[in-house]
Amino acid sequence: MKLLYPNTLKLLPSALAGFPTLTLHLYDAKAPTLPADLHDAEILVTWANAPANLSYAAKNLPNLRWIQSLAAGPNDVLAAGFDTARVKVTTGSGLHDATVAEHTLGLLLTAARRFHEMRDAQTLGKWPGYLGGPQPDREPGTFRTLRDARVLVLGFGNIAKRLTPLLVALGAEVKGVARTPGVRAGVQVFGEDSLPELLPQTDALVMILPGDTSTRHALNRERLALLPRHAWVVNVGRGSSVDEDALFEALQKEEIGGAALDVFEKEPLPEGDQLYKAKNLVLSPHAAGGRPQGAEALIVDNLRRFLAGQDLRNIV
Amino acid sequence: MKLLYPNTLKLLPSALAGFPTLTLHLYDAKAPTLPADLHDAEILVTWANAPANLSYAAKNLPNLRWIQSLAAGPNDVLAAGFDTARVKVTTGSGLHDATVAEHTLGLLLTAARRFHEMRDAQTLGKWPGYLGGPQPDREPGTFRTLRDARVLVLGFGNIAKRLTPLLVALGAEVKGVARTPGVRAGVQVFGEDSLPELLPQTDALVMILPGDTSTRHALNRERLALLPRHAWVVNVGRGSSVDEDALFEALQKEEIGGAALDVFEKEPLPEGDQLYKAKNLVLSPHAAGGRPQGAEALIVDNLRRFLAGQDLRNIV
Ligand SMILES: NC(=O)c1ccc[n+]([C@@H]2O[C@H](COP(=O)([O-])OP(=O)(O)OC[C@H]3O[C@@H](n4cnc5c(N)ncnc54)[C@H](OP(=O)(O)O)[C@@H]3O)[C@@H](O)[C@H]2O)c1
Ligand SMILES: NC(=O)c1ccc[n+]([C@@H]2O[C@H](COP(=O)([O-])OP(=O)(O)OC[C@H]3O[C@@H](n4cnc5c(N)ncnc54)[C@H](OP(=O)(O)O)[C@@H]3O)[C@@H](O)[C@H]2O)c1
Repeated sequence: MKLLYPNTLKLLPSALAGFPTLTLHLYDAKAPTLPADLHDAEILVTWANAPANLSYAAKNLPNLRWIQSLAAGPNDVLAAGFDTARVKVTTGSGLHDATVAEHTLGLLLTAARRFHEMRDAQTLGKWPGYLGGPQPDREPGTFRTLRDARVLVLGFGNIAKRLTPLLVALGAEVKGVARTPGVRAGVQVFGEDSLPELLPQTDALVMILPGDTSTRHALNRERLALLPRHAWVVNVGRGSSVDEDALFEALQKEEIGGAALDVFEKEPLPEGDQLYKAKNLVLSPHAAGGRPQGAEALIVDNLRRFLAGQDLRNIV
Repeated sequence: MKLLYPNTLKLLPSALAGFPTLTLHLYDAKAPTLPADLHDAEILVTWANAPANLSYAAKNLPNLRWIQSLAAGPNDVLAAGFDTARVKVTTGSGLHDATVAEHTLGLLLTAARRFHEMRDAQTLGKWPGYLGGPQPDREPGTFRTLRDARVLVLGFGNIAKRLTPLLVALGAEVKGVARTPGVRAGVQVFGEDSLPELLPQTDALVMILPGDTSTRHALNRERLALLPRHAWVVNVGRGSSVDEDALFEALQKEEIGGAALDVFEKEPLPEGDQLYKAKNLVLSPHAAGGRPQGAEALIVDNLRRFLAGQDLRNIV
């Protein structure tokens, strides 16, 4: 049985060894085709594949039964035309928790500590004195520190669970919103119907939603209007979950404190897009994840399950 | 007995109440004088006072016996000419640990995640695509995440103890340097004589030294040369502990990865100073602290000790 693994990241084949019926084959995930001797593969591991590579695989691997994507949201695989009746798809959910949580924390600290404003001043050769020296401490109606800040995480899944202890260690009060309410990772998680009460009590709204139809424009004009004027929005989930026109307007009118976005409705954000110059907008180029952590362990666990005929982890 | 407390931050007088012989008096710390009816005060709390206010106090409060500064380094009080044979001075050490630790973490994440480069691209209306999407993971000779990063904290005191658990939670390997070696807060702390071995194994050097003569130019040309080419320097202690000319040269020649400085030899950094435009330099305007946390509890503890004739905390 052949497993194909991509050349787009450093996977240790020795960490996948030990399954006697399995052979491991490196392939070029950026190439528009796959060599003929790999066409009988049953398992395909994907990461940052060229779209042409995936659609070639969809047409030319008749024995394929399982794709292990290393992406948290394998939109590329799902769009490539694989026969989903025959081919199972599993995601890399969990492999990006640490990196995305770290980046999210960095964006929150940038917002609170105004590192972007400091940068703008430095570029002009100016000392941004108003941001330094003795400062008012935790004035109501400001977001200047995570200490005692009310952070609402919309989309309280694996990444949120990783982020939460970091925020708590800095003194933030964390609440969550997900489809199913309850207590998770020590945090009170509410349903979406609670947003009208929660948003007005939020200093920083962190969005970590997947990009499906149910989350489209989850942050719309109406909900933006419920945020306090000083509140920041941080989005590291998917761009489609924010109505960017409504956000742009809220920023320009200073109806919210600012926004730090790692994801956009269109990526790359087109040159000339109004968001580049929006007031108090911090732009990050889909840089939160992009570095799967511990991919081998996930692949091995799923390989074992696959060979034992058991349910796979992270099945789509 | 009169205690004077300043109007430069929000202190809760009710949290200082309960000492029957004591009366509490608000004063204007920015004014060049103090009203005559306060001249018999025995205790003075200071924060962000005008220099003229302090030198007036030094000359006109004959009964003064104790000054509680809320600054970590009360250079202003010490320079104002108080009779130190008669007047005890205590510092606000400890009140700034959380805020400085938070800011330091933000600077480290800015460095690792390249938020300053993203900002520069955004200012130009460009998408900094090279910083996003699939990324190489923890390549040797890079500092792109705190995960597994080797962080060396030079000056391992109260702020470092607060910072360490945050870095550890993000997966960093933390070591310290102080005057006295040993294990502190679970971290191996070395003496200065170990720097020649430690510096070459450092991805991020965090400096949190006080600004006395013993720390002057603690980071000099020779020590800079021992850092790996990718290593970042973060300084939140005092500007005098870095030889800025040597640092500028190391940055321009790309002998180190970059530097994020909150403190400078001269503050504000003079307009036109070469550091504004140094390669990979991130400037923060002495903004790490500046917001004492829990000042009332320190004042009350020291008040009790003062009235009981016991040793004061944070005595200079
Ligand atoms: N920026 C980047 O570089 C990057 C990297 C990796 C991932 N991501 C994005 O981050 C997303 C989240 O990742 P994760 O690993 O945390 O996913 P996850 O564990 O699946 O969590 C998703 C969370 O969203 C909630 N949710 C889903 N649909 C919702 C809706 N319509 N309304 C309210 N809540 C809803 C889920 O609620 P329940 O728990 O109740 O089901 C769950 O709490 C991914 O889908 C991906 O798009 C971005
Ligand atoms: N940027 C800001 O806004 C801001 C705000 C607050 C404070 N600060 C600065 O941060 C400094 C540190 O604050 P802290 O509360 O952490 O102070 P701390 O608890 O007194 O710690 C100082 C540390 O520096 C070490 N040290 C002192 N002289 C040294 C030398 N010559 N060589 C090597 N190590 C030396 C001490 O070693 P031992 O433990 O062995 O004595 C101690 O570990 C303050 O003095 C202040 O200048 C800056």
